[in-house]
Amino acid sequence: MIIIIDCEDQKGLIHKITGVLAGLNLNITRNREFVEKQLNRFYMRTVVEGDVDPAVLKSALAAVLPTDHSLSINTGELKKIVIMVTKEEHCLTELISKYYFGNLKAHIVAVIGNHEHLKAYTEKFHIPYHFISHENKSRETHEAELLSCLKQYNPDYIVLAKFMRILSDDFTSHYPSRMINIHHSFLPAFKGANPYRQAYERGVKIIGATAHFVNQDLDEGPIIHQEVIPIDHTLSPIKMAAAGKDVEKLVLSKALQLVLDQKVYVSGNRTIIF
Amino acid sequence: MIIIIDCEDQKGLIHKITGVLAGLNLNITRNREFVEKQLNRFYMRTVVEGDVDPAVLKSALAAVLPTDHSLSINTGELKKIVIMVTKEEHCLTELISKYYFGNLKAHIVAVIGNHEHLKAYTEKFHIPYHFISHENKSRETHEAELLSCLKQYNPDYIVLAKFMRILSDDFTSHYPSRMINIHHSFLPAFKGANPYRQAYERGVKIIGATAHFVNQDLDEGPIIHQEVIPIDHTLSPIKMAAAGKDVEKLVLSKALQLVLDQKVYVSGNRTIIF
Amino acid sequence: MIIIIDCEDQKGLIHKITGVLAGLNLNITRNREFVEKQLNRFYMRTVVEGDVDPAVLKSALAAVLPTDHSLSINTGELKKIVIMVTKEEHCLTELISKYYFGNLKAHIVAVIGNHEHLKAYTEKFHIPYHFISHENKSRETHEAELLSCLKQYNPDYIVLAKFMRILSDDFTSHYPSRMINIHHSFLPAFKGANPYRQAYERGVKIIGATAHFVNQDLDEGPIIHQEVIPIDHTLSPIKMAAAGKDVEKLVLSKALQLVLDQKVYVSGNRTIIF
Amino acid sequence: MIIIIDCEDQKGLIHKITGVLAGLNLNITRNREFVEKQLNRFYMRTVVEGDVDPAVLKSALAAVLPTDHSLSINTGELKKIVIMVTKEEHCLTELISKYYFGNLKAHIVAVIGNHEHLKAYTEKFHIPYHFISHENKSRETHEAELLSCLKQYNPDYIVLAKFMRILSDDFTSHYPSRMINIHHSFLPAFKGANPYRQAYERGVKIIGATAHFVNQDLDEGPIIHQEVIPIDHTLSPIKMAAAGKDVEKLVLSKALQLVLDQKVYVSGNRTIIF
Repeated sequence: MIIIIDCEDQKGLIHKITGVLAGLNLNITRNREFVEKQLNRFYMRTVVEGDVDPAVLKSALAAVLPTDHSLSINTGELKKIVIMVTKEEHCLTELISKYYFGNLKAHIVAVIGNHEHLKAYTEKFHIPYHFISHENKSRETHEAELLSCLKQYNPDYIVLAKFMRILSDDFTSHYPSRMINIHHSFLPAFKGANPYRQAYERGVKIIGATAHFVNQDLDEGPIIHQEVIPIDHTLSPIKMAAAGKDVEKLVLSKALQLVLDQKVYVSGNRTIIF
Repeated sequence: MIIIIDCEDQKGLIHKITGVLAGLNLNITRNREFVEKQLNRFYMRTVVEGDVDPAVLKSALAAVLPTDHSLSINTGELKKIVIMVTKEEHCLTELISKYYFGNLKAHIVAVIGNHEHLKAYTEKFHIPYHFISHENKSRETHEAELLSCLKQYNPDYIVLAKFMRILSDDFTSHYPSRMINIHHSFLPAFKGANPYRQAYERGVKIIGATAHFVNQDLDEGPIIHQEVIPIDHTLSPIKMAAAGKDVEKLVLSKALQLVLDQKVYVSGNRTIIF
Repeated sequence: MIIIIDCEDQKGLIHKITGVLAGLNLNITRNREFVEKQLNRFYMRTVVEGDVDPAVLKSALAAVLPTDHSLSINTGELKKIVIMVTKEEHCLTELISKYYFGNLKAHIVAVIGNHEHLKAYTEKFHIPYHFISHENKSRETHEAELLSCLKQYNPDYIVLAKFMRILSDDFTSHYPSRMINIHHSFLPAFKGANPYRQAYERGVKIIGATAHFVNQDLDEGPIIHQEVIPIDHTLSPIKMAAAGKDVEKLVLSKALQLVLDQKVYVSGNRTIIF
Repeated sequence: MIIIIDCEDQKGLIHKITGVLAGLNLNITRNREFVEKQLNRFYMRTVVEGDVDPAVLKSALAAVLPTDHSLSINTGELKKIVIMVTKEEHCLTELISKYYFGNLKAHIVAVIGNHEHLKAYTEKFHIPYHFISHENKSRETHEAELLSCLKQYNPDYIVLAKFMRILSDDFTSHYPSRMINIHHSFLPAFKGANPYRQAYERGVKIIGATAHFVNQDLDEGPIIHQEVIPIDHTLSPIKMAAAGKDVEKLVLSKALQLVLDQKVYVSGNRTIIF
């Protein structure tokens, strides 16, 4: 059982919390805390072993926490995710391959694409694929169709696996800290379109990828994970894009894993990763 | 103030320990715990703020810990280190440069060399340099001279900064988990002499360095830190050795920093790093 | 067109070779050379543009090279590969995902498994899967069956994608420098069985993977590519194995890509990578 | 002897160049070429062994190259560098430590600081230290004093080793592609002041350093080398700055080494690194 706490900081919190756990005869096998001093917030992730009704544990903990708290008890049920794609396949194949062989800790309930390219692949694995084209539609209409499709699945998280359409604030506000995007640069370098072309023009010696929550302006949400790879002068933008595919898919996959393991806390526009 | 605990694992330990801290009105600003299940050991490193006599804190904590415990309260006094060298300079210059500008968190009380190469450099910084040659001496005699020199400084830690002599078990037993060595390979690959020559012969594509405690057989003590760098076919063993110098000095420097920050626990032949 | 030369070193070789190319009005767009002095061998990989019959080019080049040479002209036709697997899926899904979307530069003509676990997945992509169990058979019999299956496909390369059976020298001698294996450690550390268990026991701070040709003794062939990832004390051998999967699959995939791009030369027990 | 060629691209160049070398009975031991197609430029770096007057070689090569060429023959004489600093010591100690023990391949002829902090350290190594304060002076006056001091040393390269003053275009135009700066971020992210504070605010998971030529606008010149390190939420801007010091000093040191080895070509606003 994983206990997730995010609350106002106070002296003695760990003692109070561990007192509840000891009183319920639970054994702590993993524990991380962090205090964000600027925001005066306390974050704690605790893995416990023992026999207890999660509802009982939750109300016992709530009783000792400050009023301004967020608390959840995770008992291991699989989260539901919907993946959104355009034409590029590498992030989707990474997630579906892990899912198919039981290594994802989530249930992929659907894939939505604004092109048809990835339909045949997705359906091999008996995952519903919804082709919702943006062509000849206003942004409002297209987003309304996407939202309508998403809502029928009631997903815990939405994964933008190289979904190459800009989403409005109105759209993203439906899933705060629950939409995860992969951007093909080490943000904040090379925001926006064609980051590999930008990287080529600037002559950088490293390229990378960034997975982040989509809470607000494009490419500005809280960063979950980043990795880079070295490059040299022989790589054209097209070769960079090819070389970047492996790092993109791993960065997205690791970020999603961290989120599914309940290890990611949003703290202002930053993340705490336990 | 940093509290370091290493004891038998028991249920409720964190609650008891944090109860002592709350009772003394101390605020926890950083906390890490780990339970090594195979050995049934509990490790905890806690940073607290507040006004308390360390001796009072220590006895209050000792009262709630299992009998089989090790406990220390670190109040920030600088540790004393002696550095042992042979001819190669890069690890020594790294440590002395950081020390001279106040970035080492330790006091380098002396350097001992079995050659004279690094004497002039060391003495520029007004650090005593003891030239204790091994030539025309039995190992026993040489080690007795080294020990005698070391003892006059009563060091907390001894840093083997490319000291290229094999030390006997008898010698190393005087400083258990207190001698830190840098080995120029990613152990356990390429133990023993000429690791870069061995790496060349085997045709590896990465080389590295390992910092470890010297508790027992050569190159077999608990590993503190390791890093690697990529290489290619154009590097001869001599060029590898040159390329490896930077990673060697940083690995040793980082390992020493971790030790000085009281972040390293020896657990069997492994280390816990907080 | 890619020209691959491996020959005895001589003064003036590049001038002679480029003279042939200039005479045929070919333009060099990429060129790499290396001289291995210990073996007195010259290696060159040249990409040329222009209109020429490959057979004409080959005989013109052969005329200026030392007698002891190996020379090939690669005109871009896809190589044929057979993948051999046991139960673990991650290397296979990586290769098949890239293949299915046209990013492999090879044709996967068949998969052979000594278990049935990966059959259903493979067949989704209309790739023949041959289940050839080793159970209740002598090594000789099993290998004879494998060889017989392999031969019907006449593969250019065989990829051991976590094929967990030791192959005899007799078997591997059929495909010198044409069988590529992935070993789940940064060789030569942790040869043989259970490398993650070995890594845990030794307490290393990095784990890795090695792709190499299988020319001789197990885990001793020329290394093509290696990568590592940092780990810490919280990872059990089982978690290490999970964390290692991503690096294993990428190391194998990159090594295969290098081989397919004709960038890998075997030089003694080492490789030259251009 | 190292031959450095940068010229308009033409068919048959390598053949012509190697013809000159063969005619002079020189043996090529290392050779790299690159064609930048957008600019139609050919870059070649060739290491040769043999007995020849460099002036003879140079004029023989010039005769076969296009009119629009740059050509130099490097016979191994040490380059002269001046280092400019402010208060931070780590890049300076890195370069002086390597220099003092003969590992820099350059002669540090002077250090110029706009503060006095690093004077005592520098003078331990008998290197002239010029303290040229910027206080109570216009930028023009200060830069005139710096230039005047620089000119007396006639340096081949100027290394800005954490020189924290913005230099005017007028100043930098005196040393085109000969001033090397270290910026404490992975450019183009976090240009300008306080990059670690910017990195903290943005919540990135990697920080880095960039060494580049100073040819034009601040932080916009051709990049020579970049490296990054992973960070997490526990690092304040001050801790990031401390953690970044090691990567800054190594990136600058490696970039300078590449430049001194004549491996860096400026090509538009990008670099070719052989």
